[in-house]
Amino acid sequence: MTRKIRLGAFLPGGGQHIASWRHPDQPADGAVNLDFHIRLAQEAERGLFDAYFLADGLATGGTSEGGPARIAGFEPVTLFAALSAHTSHLGFIATASTTYEEPYNTARKFASLDLISGGRAGWNVVTTATEAAARNFNLDTQHPHAFRYSRAAEHVEVVRKLWDSFEDDIFIRDKDSGTFLDRAKLHRAHHQGQHFKVEGPLNVPRSPQGHPVIVQAGQSEDGRSLAAATAEVIFTAHQRLDTAQEFYRDIKARARGLGRDPDHVLIMPGVSPFVGRTESEAREKYEQLTSLILPEDGISLLNGLTGGTLDLSGFDLDGPLPPAPPTEGMKSRQALIRQIADDNNFTIRQLYQWVASARGHYTVIGSATQIADILQDWFENEGADGFNILPPWLPTGLTDFVDLVIPELQRRGLFRTAYEGRTLRANLGLPFPVNRHAAARAAAQAAE
Amino acid sequence: MTRKIRLGAFLPGGGQHIASWRHPDQPADGAVNLDFHIRLAQEAERGLFDAYFLADGLATGGTSEGGPARIAGFEPVTLFAALSAHTSHLGFIATASTTYEEPYNTARKFASLDLISGGRAGWNVVTTATEAAARNFNLDTQHPHAFRYSRAAEHVEVVRKLWDSFEDDIFIRDKDSGTFLDRAKLHRAHHQGQHFKVEGPLNVPRSPQGHPVIVQAGQSEDGRSLAAATAEVIFTAHQRLDTAQEFYRDIKARARGLGRDPDHVLIMPGVSPFVGRTESEAREKYEQLTSLILPEDGISLLNGLTGGTLDLSGFDLDGPLPPAPPTEGMKSRQALIRQIADDNNFTIRQLYQWVASARGHYTVIGSATQIADILQDWFENEGADGFNILPPWLPTGLTDFVDLVIPELQRRGLFRTAYEGRTLRANLGLPFPVNRHAAARAAAQAAE
Repeated sequence: MTRKIRLGAFLPGGGQHIASWRHPDQPADGAVNLDFHIRLAQEAERGLFDAYFLADGLATGGTSEGGPARIAGFEPVTLFAALSAHTSHLGFIATASTTYEEPYNTARKFASLDLISGGRAGWNVVTTATEAAARNFNLDTQHPHAFRYSRAAEHVEVVRKLWDSFEDDIFIRDKDSGTFLDRAKLHRAHHQGQHFKVEGPLNVPRSPQGHPVIVQAGQSEDGRSLAAATAEVIFTAHQRLDTAQEFYRDIKARARGLGRDPDHVLIMPGVSPFVGRTESEAREKYEQLTSLILPEDGISLLNGLTGGTLDLSGFDLDGPLPPAPPTEGMKSRQALIRQIADDNNFTIRQLYQWVASARGHYTVIGSATQIADILQDWFENEGADGFNILPPWLPTGLTDFVDLVIPELQRRGLFRTAYEGRTLRANLGLPFPVNRHAAARAAAQAAE
Repeated sequence: MTRKIRLGAFLPGGGQHIASWRHPDQPADGAVNLDFHIRLAQEAERGLFDAYFLADGLATGGTSEGGPARIAGFEPVTLFAALSAHTSHLGFIATASTTYEEPYNTARKFASLDLISGGRAGWNVVTTATEAAARNFNLDTQHPHAFRYSRAAEHVEVVRKLWDSFEDDIFIRDKDSGTFLDRAKLHRAHHQGQHFKVEGPLNVPRSPQGHPVIVQAGQSEDGRSLAAATAEVIFTAHQRLDTAQEFYRDIKARARGLGRDPDHVLIMPGVSPFVGRTESEAREKYEQLTSLILPEDGISLLNGLTGGTLDLSGFDLDGPLPPAPPTEGMKSRQALIRQIADDNNFTIRQLYQWVASARGHYTVIGSATQIADILQDWFENEGADGFNILPPWLPTGLTDFVDLVIPELQRRGLFRTAYEGRTLRANLGLPFPVNRHAAARAAAQAAE
């Protein structure tokens, strides 16, 4: 089978660009408008995207999301449960925190979404790196970076154990004999670790894809270790092919070193596309959105993107970015923002204008051909297995991509022309995760 | 306005009666069958029920739910988010634990369900009383009863504060000026208590009904205090009108004593109806289900209903119920089961047969007229403001009630013939909860 580009779509109803809510096409109430989210999901499915992806935070205001329209909205798992009813093939990747949730609850809500959607769920594992979130969960200040990543690794381990509580063929459901299930195929987790003690079993069985796809986005050393060990899809932010290649090769090597098949670790950088029928039309779209940014929203965005530690009040917007104090959160994001400023010699104003659409992800401006050229280059040169597309405003930013870029990728044989299957794993080409208890029994039987 | 009976429907997809999955009408995979749940929700809406109600536990096997078909299923909030897409007026009351969740997460998922459903959500507040659940959340044994209720009261308090984070008219969304909201109408919770420290604000705004309806079911002294102080709907279990009246009068008096309007505290005992066109047809339906109970499932049920402490192995099924050890969980439920055994002089077998359909709730067997007589008697004599109907098997147990009992109640002028509104509060006749910050400002302005 030819290797194909995988595509996720970041579609926050409030819009991605911090000024998007002021765009004429974008419903100003998009963040809390269910019908608008249904429309976005159906549009992404029309474009044959693998998945609808949503970020998440456990606080409001001053978060890295930035932009007033994203101050409040739906919780992603409940939203996706509703959207799954209006779609049939699109996957749903929701973000949830390993720091502020308990693994039994995490395992359960994602297993439930996975069952409800017929095997179309993914979990984007995050450690939640803001001080504001810590203050919503009984803390004065957040746990150190290393603690959060240690807890994250164990949290994922417990969740995966719980997702194997029921073997796939446990249910007999024979009304005549009264035999509902084969109890030998029900398993406890018996987990005792540094952070968690969880007995199990979970009270949700497996879905048609076995269990949700595990997604991560860490770029720090801790984040890369965690991702290489456990993630099946990795969301990442790069402005240049060379840093993307360094990341791609590093993760694939780490995965191989851990005995994993590197083809089962899909690396998907974020891309924010301004698409036009010509390059100048695309540029006009970029300038239009940029002109709608209010300076206070730009400053608030830069503060959020650097972990809430960079106070820019009093600085000249047309001067350089001042140094930032060290932070326990968003370490790699902070470095990336600094790199963008340095590489481009940006003033504060130029910096927030540039990151306003994509929060440090790669902003591409051009015709469908130009954008497809970039995606193809990264895809064919160890920069990416696919991309997470972040349309700067909605719905037309998405529609432009679906109507112009997708057909160009299809013409080049780089993207599907129909969904391969009904589950997220089937479409991503990821293997079905064999239940560990069934595997152990099969191995024991083979050894006899 | 004439007072009307309120009706909730308990519709676990796996069936209520522990042998229901063996009934010819019941899909044996009902617990994990989304289409079946959609059908049940639509059937309840056809019957003009106020709400679809689901219990919940944070463990599997050996819980009070009993019955093999309920060993696993959907998580209620995610399920209801999906079902809300297939209905327009029916409310959705989901159970969630104050012991094993954090208030920020609880507030958020219910606020999200409330927005998604257009104001049709309710939260059934439970403390989760099983040892099995404790072992899924880092504990060896569960917290004492008093600790759980103290945490529950504070948990509800924090959630309500968070639900007032956004005033109802906070959003301006003026694209021209770039003013998205009125920041003076965004509020932190600033909560510091014995169990929680939560700064806020929440990142989900209010729904059309203000916030979800608060539901509770505690019957112990601690449970009654909590319910009278905070619940808007109280689910309760009684076998006789006299104990129902004692409970009804006590709760209404407590609510009045706390300065609450007793009409805004709706008391809804559970009723498990076997409905026939004649009494003997109803009895046949009861006997049919009873004949399907396996003894081991009956024993497991009695163990679960008494908090997992009553080991009946080795006892004669046709002998009396032995004494049970004291428990930290399910205190009032344990007393109720004991009372049923004593009142009826039941053997172990007779006891599990009787509680198999309703777990200690009131089982009524008869024609529509006979059942309507009982409901009317309780409703008009301070026993109930409404009922939670627990059809013993599905879907026909529900369909019988919708087709036979609902029209009889309507003929008597006791039940609606059309929904009064689009939100759960509007249908239950509960007041819109005025935002505390808006109320404080209005009071301050009036005093000027």
